[in-house]
Amino acid sequence: MSRRIRRTPFTKKVEEFGVSGFTVVNHMLLPKAFKKTVEEDYWHLKENVQLWDVSCQRQVQIEGPDAETLIQKITPRSIANIKVGKCLYIPLIDENAGMINDPVLLKINKDKFWLSIADSDILLWAKGISFGLDLNVKINEPNVYPLAIQGPKSEDLLVSIFGEKIRKIKFFNFDLFDFQGTKQIIARAGYSKQGGFEIYFNGYDLGENLWDTIWQAGQKFNISPGCPNLIERIEGGLMSYGNDFTNENNPLECNLEKFCSEDNPHDFIGKSALNKIRKEGVKQKIRGIIFEGGPCPVCAKPFPVFKDKIQIGQITSGIYSPRIKKNVGLSMILKGFWNIGNEVQVLTPDSILRSGIITSLPFPK
Amino acid sequence: MSRRIRRTPFTKKVEEFGVSGFTVVNHMLLPKAFKKTVEEDYWHLKENVQLWDVSCQRQVQIEGPDAETLIQKITPRSIANIKVGKCLYIPLIDENAGMINDPVLLKINKDKFWLSIADSDILLWAKGISFGLDLNVKINEPNVYPLAIQGPKSEDLLVSIFGEKIRKIKFFNFDLFDFQGTKQIIARAGYSKQGGFEIYFNGYDLGENLWDTIWQAGQKFNISPGCPNLIERIEGGLMSYGNDFTNENNPLECNLEKFCSEDNPHDFIGKSALNKIRKEGVKQKIRGIIFEGGPCPVCAKPFPVFKDKIQIGQITSGIYSPRIKKNVGLSMILKGFWNIGNEVQVLTPDSILRSGIITSLPFPK
Repeated sequence: MSRRIRRTPFTKKVEEFGVSGFTVVNHMLLPKAFKKTVEEDYWHLKENVQLWDVSCQRQVQIEGPDAETLIQKITPRSIANIKVGKCLYIPLIDENAGMINDPVLLKINKDKFWLSIADSDILLWAKGISFGLDLNVKINEPNVYPLAIQGPKSEDLLVSIFGEKIRKIKFFNFDLFDFQGTKQIIARAGYSKQGGFEIYFNGYDLGENLWDTIWQAGQKFNISPGCPNLIERIEGGLMSYGNDFTNENNPLECNLEKFCSEDNPHDFIGKSALNKIRKEGVKQKIRGIIFEGGPCPVCAKPFPVFKDKIQIGQITSGIYSPRIKKNVGLSMILKGFWNIGNEVQVLTPDSILRSGIITSLPFPK
Repeated sequence: MSRRIRRTPFTKKVEEFGVSGFTVVNHMLLPKAFKKTVEEDYWHLKENVQLWDVSCQRQVQIEGPDAETLIQKITPRSIANIKVGKCLYIPLIDENAGMINDPVLLKINKDKFWLSIADSDILLWAKGISFGLDLNVKINEPNVYPLAIQGPKSEDLLVSIFGEKIRKIKFFNFDLFDFQGTKQIIARAGYSKQGGFEIYFNGYDLGENLWDTIWQAGQKFNISPGCPNLIERIEGGLMSYGNDFTNENNPLECNLEKFCSEDNPHDFIGKSALNKIRKEGVKQKIRGIIFEGGPCPVCAKPFPVFKDKIQIGQITSGIYSPRIKKNVGLSMILKGFWNIGNEVQVLTPDSILRSGIITSLPFPK
């Protein structure tokens, strides 16, 4: 614990509520568990509502006449048609078409955007490019700390606080709501497949009031403190930058073709590298794997995946699913072996070679 | 534990040797403690030799005809006179003259440099600027994992492995040494004031051999596994990016004037902002504080510093010094209050208001 690993407006609350561990994302604390097992947390999330401190999803604010130009420069996805009030998932790539982040873009107004980032310093990337190209933008990290409300009861909970207007927010849209004299952005979004919202909480001092308000209103919805759940994330096929793909991977390997249209007329960074990869075809792809042999150990290092004793890929995130009653993993699998239904073997750190089968993503319901 | 928080070639070793916790720097594991108290570790470091896995000091390799041009663009320090084989501490600043890192620069050859970085993604910053300015450089993160040998017995230990040539390395210089058929860079440098070396270990698979070789040779020097020691670091006035200064601070506030010469003819990023600050004078500066009241709590959040009930600064890193027998802190103190010998009060999270005194840095021996 030091100042370098930044606390959030909600850290005191998550400590009061019994957080039992943190990880670090974007130099900021992200809770990892609250006195319950990942499995208990999983079932609760699927049936109720949870409050997550995801402040570590830092916002990179890009504002000014060249804001759209800059964003169009750093992603293979065209943002030409995005409207104010919309969210858009955009891969960010470097000159080699290597992934450097996969943020959600929010269009705040015509000349103002936020990138809600995964774990790399896109603030520096955007500022560096802007400086070099001499663009007319201001780039900074505003005092915005996302708080997620996830789970099937999240809509009713937020309606009880912010009113019926909550129901009108469509998926990956946001609107403005009053909270104790402040305007707050609430989006229907979040890092689970159970439905939910993210409050892009703007401020700091009111953070504990916001937490308490949601907590109190949440009592009748069986609310619990929580955090992104590894079982639910893997089952839902939600990828994690740094885990399931890195700068070594291009977006086509990550099943992000639909965000990399060949028709994008913009001259974005990595365009020629990406076109070359597209033409030659990718060598590997992200797939699901269901594998046997009882609950697998923690996946701190990738598990190698074999076919007939030859390594053909690796599981990058893996865990036991209490619903499927087998292990599930996200994996990067070589061409020729990535077909759905292909039988493979997975070697886990307990030295057990487990039989597995390639699946599509998300995992079957 | 996940793939996103990267392991190092030495992680298995530090686990075998009883590491009791990690922190995260540059998306990579940094050991925090080994079964001993920070105080035991402090005395051992001052009298013996320690082996530190500081792989998280990632190298940003900048190579090509424009390498020097790019580096000169991102630092207020002139690097015109640096020779191959030299290390140089260089502040990196943004367009507002806000600090974004404070790496050690290594000149590998005429057109190839490494930035050995603190905790921010300078790879993205350098690549972004290079792209925007269309410079002829290749920038990447090589497979280099620094391993530090620190403490008064480090020279004799390394001589016993690499020979007498070790003694000839001057402070902040490096030379090449053979290790099991590989060439390795060894510099006289490191994140302590007790003397020592850093092996910029190039590779991965030989990492455990390197650890074992040093460990075995170190037995007669009373070697111990270790990590940067908070007491020793603070006493030595060694600042930490993210802790003692952030992007909110400029290098003049951080006592880095000597690396920001007005004579630097290069047109670096942030030059006009820095000159404006210089002209107007800085509003605060980093100082030492010695403060009373028994061992202070962990400094996870800055401790406010007062003069006559008005806050005049904050302690950003603080701990009890068993040598001075008082608490010591690095602090940012407002102009008018930063004079050496000034009496202040420090409020610690245990609600104790402690009397303190401003000191120069490093702390007196």
